[in-house]
Amino acid sequence: MKRGFGSDNHSGVHPRILEAIAKANVQHAPSYGTDEWTEKAENVFSEHFGPKAEVLFVFNGTAANVLALKSSAKSFQSCYCTDLAHINVDECGAPEYLAGVKLIPLPSVNGKMRLEDLKKAHIRRGDQHFSQGQVISLTQPTELGTTYSMEELKEIITWAKSENLYVHIDGARLSNAAISLNKTFKELTTDLGVDIVSFGGTKNGLMMGEAVIFLNPALYKDTKYYRKQLGQLPSKTRFIAAQFLEYFNQDLWKEIATHACNMAEKLHESVRALPGVEVTQSRQSNAVFAKIPQAWVKPLRENYFFYVWDEHTFECRWMTSWDTDISDIDGFAKSLKELSR
Amino acid sequence: MKRGFGSDNHSGVHPRILEAIAKANVQHAPSYGTDEWTEKAENVFSEHFGPKAEVLFVFNGTAANVLALKSSAKSFQSCYCTDLAHINVDECGAPEYLAGVKLIPLPSVNGKMRLEDLKKAHIRRGDQHFSQGQVISLTQPTELGTTYSMEELKEIITWAKSENLYVHIDGARLSNAAISLNKTFKELTTDLGVDIVSFGGTKNGLMMGEAVIFLNPALYKDTKYYRKQLGQLPSKTRFIAAQFLEYFNQDLWKEIATHACNMAEKLHESVRALPGVEVTQSRQSNAVFAKIPQAWVKPLRENYFFYVWDEHTFECRWMTSWDTDISDIDGFAKSLKELSR
Amino acid sequence: MKRGFGSDNHSGVHPRILEAIAKANVQHAPSYGTDEWTEKAENVFSEHFGPKAEVLFVFNGTAANVLALKSSAKSFQSCYCTDLAHINVDECGAPEYLAGVKLIPLPSVNGKMRLEDLKKAHIRRGDQHFSQGQVISLTQPTELGTTYSMEELKEIITWAKSENLYVHIDGARLSNAAISLNKTFKELTTDLGVDIVSFGGTKNGLMMGEAVIFLNPALYKDTKYYRKQLGQLPSKTRFIAAQFLEYFNQDLWKEIATHACNMAEKLHESVRALPGVEVTQSRQSNAVFAKIPQAWVKPLRENYFFYVWDEHTFECRWMTSWDTDISDIDGFAKSLKELSR
Amino acid sequence: MKRGFGSDNHSGVHPRILEAIAKANVQHAPSYGTDEWTEKAENVFSEHFGPKAEVLFVFNGTAANVLALKSSAKSFQSCYCTDLAHINVDECGAPEYLAGVKLIPLPSVNGKMRLEDLKKAHIRRGDQHFSQGQVISLTQPTELGTTYSMEELKEIITWAKSENLYVHIDGARLSNAAISLNKTFKELTTDLGVDIVSFGGTKNGLMMGEAVIFLNPALYKDTKYYRKQLGQLPSKTRFIAAQFLEYFNQDLWKEIATHACNMAEKLHESVRALPGVEVTQSRQSNAVFAKIPQAWVKPLRENYFFYVWDEHTFECRWMTSWDTDISDIDGFAKSLKELSR
Repeated sequence: MKRGFGSDNHSGVHPRILEAIAKANVQHAPSYGTDEWTEKAENVFSEHFGPKAEVLFVFNGTAANVLALKSSAKSFQSCYCTDLAHINVDECGAPEYLAGVKLIPLPSVNGKMRLEDLKKAHIRRGDQHFSQGQVISLTQPTELGTTYSMEELKEIITWAKSENLYVHIDGARLSNAAISLNKTFKELTTDLGVDIVSFGGTKNGLMMGEAVIFLNPALYKDTKYYRKQLGQLPSKTRFIAAQFLEYFNQDLWKEIATHACNMAEKLHESVRALPGVEVTQSRQSNAVFAKIPQAWVKPLRENYFFYVWDEHTFECRWMTSWDTDISDIDGFAKSLKELSR
Repeated sequence: MKRGFGSDNHSGVHPRILEAIAKANVQHAPSYGTDEWTEKAENVFSEHFGPKAEVLFVFNGTAANVLALKSSAKSFQSCYCTDLAHINVDECGAPEYLAGVKLIPLPSVNGKMRLEDLKKAHIRRGDQHFSQGQVISLTQPTELGTTYSMEELKEIITWAKSENLYVHIDGARLSNAAISLNKTFKELTTDLGVDIVSFGGTKNGLMMGEAVIFLNPALYKDTKYYRKQLGQLPSKTRFIAAQFLEYFNQDLWKEIATHACNMAEKLHESVRALPGVEVTQSRQSNAVFAKIPQAWVKPLRENYFFYVWDEHTFECRWMTSWDTDISDIDGFAKSLKELSR
Repeated sequence: MKRGFGSDNHSGVHPRILEAIAKANVQHAPSYGTDEWTEKAENVFSEHFGPKAEVLFVFNGTAANVLALKSSAKSFQSCYCTDLAHINVDECGAPEYLAGVKLIPLPSVNGKMRLEDLKKAHIRRGDQHFSQGQVISLTQPTELGTTYSMEELKEIITWAKSENLYVHIDGARLSNAAISLNKTFKELTTDLGVDIVSFGGTKNGLMMGEAVIFLNPALYKDTKYYRKQLGQLPSKTRFIAAQFLEYFNQDLWKEIATHACNMAEKLHESVRALPGVEVTQSRQSNAVFAKIPQAWVKPLRENYFFYVWDEHTFECRWMTSWDTDISDIDGFAKSLKELSR
Repeated sequence: MKRGFGSDNHSGVHPRILEAIAKANVQHAPSYGTDEWTEKAENVFSEHFGPKAEVLFVFNGTAANVLALKSSAKSFQSCYCTDLAHINVDECGAPEYLAGVKLIPLPSVNGKMRLEDLKKAHIRRGDQHFSQGQVISLTQPTELGTTYSMEELKEIITWAKSENLYVHIDGARLSNAAISLNKTFKELTTDLGVDIVSFGGTKNGLMMGEAVIFLNPALYKDTKYYRKQLGQLPSKTRFIAAQFLEYFNQDLWKEIATHACNMAEKLHESVRALPGVEVTQSRQSNAVFAKIPQAWVKPLRENYFFYVWDEHTFECRWMTSWDTDISDIDGFAKSLKELSR
């Protein structure tokens, strides 16, 4: 396949992660999360998210979100999310079907939920006819590559706590937000009162594997059973744990996230001023969103794959990754420049 | 961890499988099952299961079974299985919860379902009060390491077809049955009229990954959506497909299954005549089941891990794998002999 | 309880319906829908909805909608409805949880769905990541007492058919729409291509009981099992069937619906010109919606109960019923007039 | 329909119950359980089951059981019941599908669960692979018309409490057990430590309506939402509440239950000694179970309807009701005697 800016899951596995998998391939290990790699990885997550953090590994992002929601809401309760949220539009109804949770999609501005919309939706408390809002799911960074600022997070989470709502972070690319906002994971989640995090691996250089991090111990209680029942208990768990261990080893995660964000910024710099290119979202993680003339899509895609995000406006998504090369940026920018003339 | 006979998922990844993963780690590949490895792997499954076979990869065995059942039964329908079936006792209610299917557990003899019990359970057709039996799930080899003979399969499947029931094979270790019965996969499933197969990878030397094989095209219709909704669509699918490609390459699967079965037979030969050891099941795949005195369990486990299958009778399960070494067998047999004196 | 305009389910049972129940209370009758009253009632529905119509009785409106959706969509499919739809905001997540269907709430104008919004939402066909729209649920009359005109229905249903979507009518008060639009039930549903109808009884003078009418025979196939599984198979079915029999006997339904609509119109006439009262919705069935000053709510409610529909704008809902008396209208209008001075 | 011994739901409504419904049909009443009849009925249940008892009305028995199980177990938990239990074989998979609970069917002796079988099934505590037993459902009287003695109940419930399991009574005919055992409802449930009861109305002379009684306050917490979400919140609740009010008024329940049990005993006395009739179960409530020659079924049924319980053995179920007349017994016994000659 040609290289491109399609998605950070078009990239393969970071060489160090692959090597860590190979190193874990020794002898026998107990299965189902009782191996030593898993134990070590759990400790590493505690270092990054605080001593109370508990972690369960699952296979993919949909599963991480479903397990998080299943752990934090009952069948008569709802989850507030944005209309653009992955859980709302990219998981084929899994949250409703598997977690048994109703989603309340709220309008988004630059991919972000606004407190005023939350408040407007948070009605009919105690009314048995109305599915009761119980958890807020924030995507950080958002589907549009933007990030919630610390102030925005504080504002929403403070209100959530005052209403006894749980806060979930869909953090498939949380590392990129941490780099972009220059915050530790703990500052970005635990310290703010976040209850549960879907922490992505696959889009950040892992082969496969996501972590659900329980920052609120009350939500952790039954989760091992839910994970198993959801078909998400890996038998040879060591091969997921080993990936995360290496991901945090010597700050590999920082290296990967920084690179992806830098590449996106370079891309942004290269194209933002081109006539015909209208950048539509702040570049705050590893994506650039821009509208281009419809006629450019086909020739551009001949060398570099990417997705048209909005088929009506021809807003496109260009996503960088751990393996994006500066030559990819240069080549893509060159193509755009030629079309732009 | 010490080596042992705990489970074939205590073993790591076969070196050739690991190498195949590494080789697939090149450049970019489209995600979600549209890569070239997946396409090739689909073709390989067609070679082994017949041209109509369609395959979907999932992460683990519970998921494979759930997807198979979800594809073959509606919420008011039931699945007949044995009381010992993995779907009944080892998946934490996932078939009922995720597939929305009622399980009807039937008594088993040597791990196997008997047609007479099936017929007895298959009642009240058309009665709206009674969940309607729709699919039979047979585990091959069984949880007790035994295999259904071709005659037994024919008998059950012929009856199933006469009753318009679907037949599912839970084949987490189907390769071992194929070796043991000296049959091709096609002979063992497609040619007999099997509708759907959970085909195991993880217990046969893969890192992780199972395949759901649809032999009845009618059941394949909506499955891609169900897989996604069940949280089982891998994004970097190439890394699962590449494992299966190598598994079938130059008959690696035969090598692995033959080795595991041979090791089990050697173990069987070494211990079956020892005083105090009572082999309880025919050795027909990669497991030996035997009762031993309770007092032996602890000292035996000091060097080789294994599970006590039945805590009342001290029937134990000793399971071999692709990486079981003859020295493991010898060492274990030696320990047993010493206890047996 | 004081009388009022709270809801048409605050009223009791129409005397003729109650009498019909008493008359059905003779001797023994087979249970679970095999009695003669049920058989006759099924025939009466065929008379009103066409010879292909099949009907199943359930206990309440939530159940009727859930059974309709369960019959017309699979777990990976969606239902388009308005943001105000009863299924979206008044059934505590039952459609998602029980029918396993994702709801896609669309903006509404005067309670009604617009084709342009439907088209905008109907995207990503065949994309496994996206829950696939499969059924459109229209509430007739709407939650705001308005009715879809025949032209509006034709426009939406024609498009729906062109997209192979099913059309469901949530007709908890369908009789009122039939009277208001001066159409037969068949003209209002079957002839337009509607696939399935929730037909209300409880809000129209029955004690309890709703009918799910299958106009598309393909959707009827498994429904008796779904009804039972949903806990909606009445054992002494005759007592629901007898109510519907009487409801259609000598056009009682027309009498009831006409009275309720006429009373609403009288109420509308009496209050619409009063200073301080702003009627907000066309009066097209048995409800009047109007904004009044917040300070009026409490004194008004002292004599006549009603609901504030929107707590932000003090839009109120005044609902009439089969038993609304002209003296109720006069008394209420008088109170309003006094406040209005 | 001819009269007979088919089921106690073939009977109509007791005249006093019907009259109570008619009396409740006055003016307006608030809906959804906030009316005065409901409030009074709740108090009456407290009188009979103890001051902590909370009650929710639902439409039918399947729904009562589902709500009880949904309130007492999570999706990864199981319910122990007998293989004959209504929840296992007569509710079309509703407990699994609606309550999301796995059922563990245990062998039964004379319709009753034995503690030894319970203990054998109650294994693998804390094992995430195994659905965790959480609630025991006992049917009282059983499906075979037998009753658990106080000693049997104490034995099972004491053990249940020691294992932190909840105890549910499926009491569709609990009144008959109370009469048969000469105990109050409180003695039969609350005092023994029962947590939750499905209390039947429909089979005891009501038109329709069942009560779920929460004796363990911890289980009551979210149930109003679950009831609504399950489609079981009646809008005109007064008409269910009024039935139960009358049922307990001046001990009507005792009159009905005593009559039904007496009629069964008379039937038992009349037929038990007849050659060819083999009574198979102790007559302890309102049913007689007996094997008869296959050839007798058809002629017997010509005058009196009944069900063949077991199509293999021709064990038949003859069930009496509030409206069984002594002439029914005499006529039926006469027919049997003639066949018996």
